[in-house]
Amino acid sequence: MRFEVTILGSGAALPTSLRNPSAQYVWCNDRHILIDCGEGTQNQLRRSGISLQKISHILISHLHGDHFFGLVGLLSSMHLLGRNQGITVYGPEGLEQIIRMQLEIGGAIIGFGIDFVTLDGKTPQLLFEDNRIEIHTFPLKHRIPTNGFRINEKPFARQLDGEKYKREKQSLVHIPALKRGEDVTLEDGTVLKSAEYTFAPRKHRSYAYCSDTIYQEAIVPFIQEVDVLYHEATFLDNMADRAKATFHSTATQAAKIAQLAQVGQLLLGHLSARYEDGNAHAAEARLVFENTIVVEDGMVIVL
Amino acid sequence: MRFEVTILGSGAALPTSLRNPSAQYVWCNDRHILIDCGEGTQNQLRRSGISLQKISHILISHLHGDHFFGLVGLLSSMHLLGRNQGITVYGPEGLEQIIRMQLEIGGAIIGFGIDFVTLDGKTPQLLFEDNRIEIHTFPLKHRIPTNGFRINEKPFARQLDGEKYKREKQSLVHIPALKRGEDVTLEDGTVLKSAEYTFAPRKHRSYAYCSDTIYQEAIVPFIQEVDVLYHEATFLDNMADRAKATFHSTATQAAKIAQLAQVGQLLLGHLSARYEDGNAHAAEARLVFENTIVVEDGMVIVL
Repeated sequence: MRFEVTILGSGAALPTSLRNPSAQYVWCNDRHILIDCGEGTQNQLRRSGISLQKISHILISHLHGDHFFGLVGLLSSMHLLGRNQGITVYGPEGLEQIIRMQLEIGGAIIGFGIDFVTLDGKTPQLLFEDNRIEIHTFPLKHRIPTNGFRINEKPFARQLDGEKYKREKQSLVHIPALKRGEDVTLEDGTVLKSAEYTFAPRKHRSYAYCSDTIYQEAIVPFIQEVDVLYHEATFLDNMADRAKATFHSTATQAAKIAQLAQVGQLLLGHLSARYEDGNAHAAEARLVFENTIVVEDGMVIVL
Repeated sequence: MRFEVTILGSGAALPTSLRNPSAQYVWCNDRHILIDCGEGTQNQLRRSGISLQKISHILISHLHGDHFFGLVGLLSSMHLLGRNQGITVYGPEGLEQIIRMQLEIGGAIIGFGIDFVTLDGKTPQLLFEDNRIEIHTFPLKHRIPTNGFRINEKPFARQLDGEKYKREKQSLVHIPALKRGEDVTLEDGTVLKSAEYTFAPRKHRSYAYCSDTIYQEAIVPFIQEVDVLYHEATFLDNMADRAKATFHSTATQAAKIAQLAQVGQLLLGHLSARYEDGNAHAAEARLVFENTIVVEDGMVIVL
């Protein structure tokens, strides 16, 4: 099953010709999620060949403009393209009012339901789950209430050792229980042990998004051992004071978080417009956490 | 003196990969004006190499999203880039509230004054004038209150026939009066006739912007004889019913307005996303008004 993240915007507050403001598209087990929605996100989705209409969940981290100014335009375009399937938008208090006011003043009657779920930026919680994925939120620490997000695949069932099972001509009815890890006792007293007829399940993958935030070890439990962590790295180390003052992070700090949380890979983004490229960010971070890349707009990361 | 229009967005409500939503930059005699500001306008300005900070006046025609969703992001970026010079935004009632709410919820303290001037969409008026330009507004007819705009150069003074004047060794003090078209009587009774010492002034140019609007002959007096007219042409002729129902125009209708107003050149834009290019629009319009072009994003029209 596909689990990949498309970077739609890797810039910070001031967009540049190369880096749009924050937005990411997460395709996880046929669920389609947008995280943040800076100005121009709908165009970035088009450029990446992603259907606007597949998106069912939009997660807005916080109400700085570079994380949500593109939301109203995206919702308008979904409507103009004939959407009738509802959408759920998770974000801070005030977001719903801003979006509805802008749509209503132009007389727009949106042809699909928009379900706003208010996040308080303080409470870790499970926002959504179905048979395939879970979406969690947890608090970040920024100048205004800000939410981190974690998207998990649901645990997979154990995998049947089909050859052995066929060879022994066991009944098909026991397979679900064995795949769930349960041993099965047959009528004649024979015990089919799950461990003998199945292999360990494929690892379920997870992705976490942390932007914007000051260096904050309190987030580590929420992102523990994710396969891929996106963490903001607005500044380089020589601007650690500026990072602290503005409640942002440096590349080194992001790497420390990745190390503490024992993640698989670290993605750095939200680079200040003052940097021409991400080479120095990558270099600084790799001193602490080797498996780091600085993302760029349009990049696709496969988990 | 330079008078040119840069097309930043030539699309309609639904942006495409080629056509951004409405926005134009008008550079007129060292005055820098933005007309409409759809999502992504700040990026389009960057792509065209235009300094955001030079813009002193922003004119918003109406509150459909494709004409103003980019305004809050543009103002934010002006602030982040260190602007301290004030700006005047002309637009419909409600615009100020929407912009201020979005800025305030993110805790933004904008470092320059934003002076909002409310337009009622009904009253023709002179919005601004100085020694170089005039900005006028006049009502269009759309589904919600909508403003057209006309930007005029101020009339130029007559041009001195310097050779003749020098040859006759006339006093320099009389030049301003002669250039204003006034005759001057010298102490000895000689009359210096303005018409003999000066040439006709250079024609002062003018530009008009009409988007969005239904076919509406009532606008003709306000755009009479402009050098260049931008008129929306959302549809082709075979969708005239749809144009009427949605208060938009066809290319042919735009051309009729250009003909009635005896303009110099017609620019067509605001093309519906259903059209792959503007060839058919141009062809239909030229049957009525020959000097027509369909604009594209990034195009610069020199008056």
